[in-house]
Amino acid sequence: MISKPTLLLDETKCKANITFMAKRATRFNVELRPHFKTHQSLEVGRWFKDAGVTKITVSSLDMASYFAEEWNDITVAFPVNILEIDTINDLASKVTLNVLIESETSLEFLKTHLKHPVNFYIKINIGNNRAGLLHFDTEGIDALLEASKNSDKVHFIGFLGHAGQTYKCRSKADIIAVHEEAKKKLISLKNQYKASYPNIIASYGDTPSCSVAENFEGIDEIRPGNFVFYDMVQVQIGSCDVSNIAVALECPIVGIHPKQNEVVIYGGGIHLSKDRMIDDTFGTIYGNVAQKSDNGWNELIANTYVRAISQEHGVVKVPENDLQHYKVGDTLLVLPVHSCMTADLMKKYQTLDGKTISMLTY
Amino acid sequence: MISKPTLLLDETKCKANITFMAKRATRFNVELRPHFKTHQSLEVGRWFKDAGVTKITVSSLDMASYFAEEWNDITVAFPVNILEIDTINDLASKVTLNVLIESETSLEFLKTHLKHPVNFYIKINIGNNRAGLLHFDTEGIDALLEASKNSDKVHFIGFLGHAGQTYKCRSKADIIAVHEEAKKKLISLKNQYKASYPNIIASYGDTPSCSVAENFEGIDEIRPGNFVFYDMVQVQIGSCDVSNIAVALECPIVGIHPKQNEVVIYGGGIHLSKDRMIDDTFGTIYGNVAQKSDNGWNELIANTYVRAISQEHGVVKVPENDLQHYKVGDTLLVLPVHSCMTADLMKKYQTLDGKTISMLTY
Repeated sequence: MISKPTLLLDETKCKANITFMAKRATRFNVELRPHFKTHQSLEVGRWFKDAGVTKITVSSLDMASYFAEEWNDITVAFPVNILEIDTINDLASKVTLNVLIESETSLEFLKTHLKHPVNFYIKINIGNNRAGLLHFDTEGIDALLEASKNSDKVHFIGFLGHAGQTYKCRSKADIIAVHEEAKKKLISLKNQYKASYPNIIASYGDTPSCSVAENFEGIDEIRPGNFVFYDMVQVQIGSCDVSNIAVALECPIVGIHPKQNEVVIYGGGIHLSKDRMIDDTFGTIYGNVAQKSDNGWNELIANTYVRAISQEHGVVKVPENDLQHYKVGDTLLVLPVHSCMTADLMKKYQTLDGKTISMLTY
Repeated sequence: MISKPTLLLDETKCKANITFMAKRATRFNVELRPHFKTHQSLEVGRWFKDAGVTKITVSSLDMASYFAEEWNDITVAFPVNILEIDTINDLASKVTLNVLIESETSLEFLKTHLKHPVNFYIKINIGNNRAGLLHFDTEGIDALLEASKNSDKVHFIGFLGHAGQTYKCRSKADIIAVHEEAKKKLISLKNQYKASYPNIIASYGDTPSCSVAENFEGIDEIRPGNFVFYDMVQVQIGSCDVSNIAVALECPIVGIHPKQNEVVIYGGGIHLSKDRMIDDTFGTIYGNVAQKSDNGWNELIANTYVRAISQEHGVVKVPENDLQHYKVGDTLLVLPVHSCMTADLMKKYQTLDGKTISMLTY
């Protein structure tokens, strides 16, 4: 019995998600370099080793340092932060470190400050409009390649893009259309520069496309992350079903409000995060409530969702006829809107048989 | 020089905020029982002792346990979570512990499981619609009071409400109107039950009303929290000016995108939180950028704001003519939308003279 908000991890579902993605990678003949920013756990990482994975992606040098204990080929999928040069040098002395370059300033800095060689991808904006050079900016690309030529510290290995615009999709067909458009941008760059750099790769990935698309020709590696747990946003996008979601926040019930058809839970923004989604029926919601089962959880409870959260409070809307099933001193299970953010906040997992799984703590 | 996202704390501004609120409490003849959920730091707590504060509010039993090291009168302003009875008993053995009751189940449980007496407030919903009994639910109040009569473990001390609906205000006049309406509900309950319980108090508070209202007659204690740092939401509400904001997230610049007039920073949802606000001009934003000064920061840089965040990325919109002032390898300062959430995520502060101030870590 838990006493505080606790992030439950269904090991069986999680391992099935890992196997699912590993099989897809094999089928499409791409390397799976999974993004570990979602789970941030050495132990969960070992489940990927069991599935044959040997290379990983992270989103910070802190994460890279944590995972360097057990992994020796790490891509930091974030525009390189030269202020952390000491950490970069430390990592580069231990593992094959791959960084993202999108700025000449960063590249020049690395050339003069690196003590050990690193590989770099050029980060390309393939439609997500967050980071990277625009996909048609060959002038920018040429400048970076030219600057890297006279250095034995930085080694160009390919183009990397993240089709995060799939997060706006609402069906498998949508995802596939976005995927086709986005991957083309990356592949055409690879083809364009292959004559001069025959070994370069196209590194691509986001959970929606990697979960549902069927054509990865021209792509060499994929870097999905969220699929390890999935979440309600991924269900809404069309990447997965509710039955694939591998984490749930167990929350104590601290109040019942029959007049408002609401249940107050201990479980708020410092547990679930303030990430939200727009439900077609209920508007902004912060999570859905799942049916408890003997071991874990089953499907969603209809029309039952977190309508508001503050620092530690959550307010759950419950159909009038269901209210009798909730009691102060019991708990309920929230499937998170965004599992990456919830995991980052909770800092550990509890498996369904009660074992604690640790994560990176900062 | 910082190398990673770092939460800067301007000690002078913070102490001025504390003094400001302590003086208001004295002026209005109310006890200041500040909410420590915002800063979550023993060291910052000591600055309140210097201002004469002797009683505090927290929002979890974890926080109560942390602060019990240096404080001996603690209100946990959250509907009591009976699943944490062991922590409650431990705390009640050490300090004057005040809990919130809104459920008969909780009260009956406490009566039979407490080993040491605790005080309780009845939590009243005075318009925020999160937790508590509705303010006209005297039947519910009577039932709780009746149930508490035959116990020497639970001692009724008054009514507690949080006028969180002030967060929807957009001017001082709005705040005052909401405050007048909300406080009446609490005071009328106190007056109604005073004959039977002559020593009960009305405990009230939220940063907007406590920052700007001028009439607290009938209120006995106030529990604002956010004012210790303030933030951009409080500026929008009308609680404070930008110059009162005492924390800023210093973020490395990792990319410059002249074609989009954007700067990419290392600073995302795991640093600032995913809390957002609707700016009148720019729509949804995740923070504003402040001008660096020799020591700390000055006013906002016009039209410069965080337009998007993901796990570690922030994308900052910058006016075209200003773009030249930003360089990869430099840093910029983000004033957070919601400082409570940012502090909770960052887990420590750096003062402007480089000293680290620790916080509760879970």
